[in-house]
Amino acid sequence: MATLMDVARAAGVSKATASRALQRPELVAEATRLRVLDAAQRLGFHPNAAARALTTGRTGLVGLVVPTLSNPFFAPLVMGAQQTAEKTDHHLLIAVSEYDPTREAELADRLAEQADGLIMVTPVGTDTALRERARRFPLVLVDRQVGRLPAVVADTATGLAQLMDHLLDQGHRDIAYVSGPAGSWADGQRSAILTERAEQAKARLRVLGPLPPTFDAGIEAARALPRDATAVLAYNSYLTLGLLHGLAAANRRVPEDVSLAAADDLSSLRSTTPPVTALDVPVEEVGALAVTRLIDLLAGRHVTVTSRLPSRPVLRASTAPPAASAHR
Amino acid sequence: MATLMDVARAAGVSKATASRALQRPELVAEATRLRVLDAAQRLGFHPNAAARALTTGRTGLVGLVVPTLSNPFFAPLVMGAQQTAEKTDHHLLIAVSEYDPTREAELADRLAEQADGLIMVTPVGTDTALRERARRFPLVLVDRQVGRLPAVVADTATGLAQLMDHLLDQGHRDIAYVSGPAGSWADGQRSAILTERAEQAKARLRVLGPLPPTFDAGIEAARALPRDATAVLAYNSYLTLGLLHGLAAANRRVPEDVSLAAADDLSSLRSTTPPVTALDVPVEEVGALAVTRLIDLLAGRHVTVTSRLPSRPVLRASTAPPAASAHR
Repeated sequence: MATLMDVARAAGVSKATASRALQRPELVAEATRLRVLDAAQRLGFHPNAAARALTTGRTGLVGLVVPTLSNPFFAPLVMGAQQTAEKTDHHLLIAVSEYDPTREAELADRLAEQADGLIMVTPVGTDTALRERARRFPLVLVDRQVGRLPAVVADTATGLAQLMDHLLDQGHRDIAYVSGPAGSWADGQRSAILTERAEQAKARLRVLGPLPPTFDAGIEAARALPRDATAVLAYNSYLTLGLLHGLAAANRRVPEDVSLAAADDLSSLRSTTPPVTALDVPVEEVGALAVTRLIDLLAGRHVTVTSRLPSRPVLRASTAPPAASAHR
Repeated sequence: MATLMDVARAAGVSKATASRALQRPELVAEATRLRVLDAAQRLGFHPNAAARALTTGRTGLVGLVVPTLSNPFFAPLVMGAQQTAEKTDHHLLIAVSEYDPTREAELADRLAEQADGLIMVTPVGTDTALRERARRFPLVLVDRQVGRLPAVVADTATGLAQLMDHLLDQGHRDIAYVSGPAGSWADGQRSAILTERAEQAKARLRVLGPLPPTFDAGIEAARALPRDATAVLAYNSYLTLGLLHGLAAANRRVPEDVSLAAADDLSSLRSTTPPVTALDVPVEEVGALAVTRLIDLLAGRHVTVTSRLPSRPVLRASTAPPAASAHR
């Protein structure tokens, strides 16, 4: 494979000039730059990433650590992050922690070596570990808030409170929340705000779970659902699809027997029978904004401590006033 | 941050010896090695990946390019790959092509610079592009076969033919195949074998699609399903869950009115009402074996050209003889 020296020789310039022409073209005369580029192309010169990282200190890579790939939340998030990264000539490399704090730390370390900066999505490490990492390396958190570290958060708690208010307005006074994975920061935020709202309205809130965010767990949750709950809020779309299926299998009609709403709108909830009321969470935008914040950090720009993106209830046919309330 | 020179000074050895002690310990006396390791630990020396790659030629990283994260197929595949990579002290970095051949090629190039070798899962690039890449870089394909390039394939076509035989044995003569994403290599293999089986049995096979592998598309497929088809085979679990929901919404009972079976068993099909007959595809094993093959390649070992992992039909209550056939 051609080396930088080969390119320099072919272009009739010094190695330093060839390097500048490729890395910092603004420092080189246009004619020289074109000669070097032409030689590089002719010889098939492909600057080695390791060498490039050593000379420029930049890799053009953004690292993203996610806890799992089996949650549908991460597909649009990665897509948003990737599109924004590409707009600034960065590529995205992803690592999966499988919710293991040790693996998360190792992968973050390895990505930190390879990339210019790091995004950690719903990390499971301690606040201390994340603070320490942010001191060593440009870091943006997603859906996790640790003091004043740069973070992008989808504000599902506020949106969920609005969904709860909608149910309370419809007359529901016995509501179940089917919660998500154990130890989820977002889930903690949500349970807290739902409990507060229920207390204010003197309504009953029962929390089922923690549960994995899957169709399967939704079916289980439908079985475990208290008979007298007139409405159910679920952690995510997959749980909701499972609930919808499990309730149908148990001959409990939605919304006649029980109202159903979801804390995200990622999977097909508009196409089900009935369509399901859900929170529209701007997941792609969250991914995109996380990259923008990281690029800002890398450029030494001021980064707003936490960016909150609002989510918005979308009301559909699955939520209705409790039919039974009249004759109770 | 401590440099290699700091470590060398603290250990009282030359920089070259310190480097050897960390990279190629077998070349250094045990006492020296321990002194250097101790100094490195004390000073918090963390060898820079770029520098390490330049000196050892190895990064300890395995690159994995997938077309999307929104297909549930990739979560267990990545998990299997990661576990196997970790057994040999490798980490896994993932990039997502979003089915775009240009992005796929770019990401593969960038990963190739960062990693020791590359796994490309159901790549969308041309055979020529993949061959050319394999000449430049250790490459293992997953669920795509290109001549004699190292590949690991989940043999869903043979398993699907067995599912088809099961339906034919039950007396079905009008079967629909709800196919997957356009241009999928695996889907082409499947359509071909299903068509062949149908012709042999003088049965009718109608192919719906191509469709995205989603719950939503399954609901659409249920609407588009010919009324006289007595059995449906679907490309994957999500499509199948959508079909199940859409058929219920249209008051078509499974299996009384129509039998339903899926070409993978990734999402909850054992927990639905009724449980759905499906192909058990060893997706985690596919990911694991792809990494094993790549490590073999890196070690200069002979790599079997294509490894085929069999998939196996799991019969459940969703498939039954066509009830209507008696009075037709």
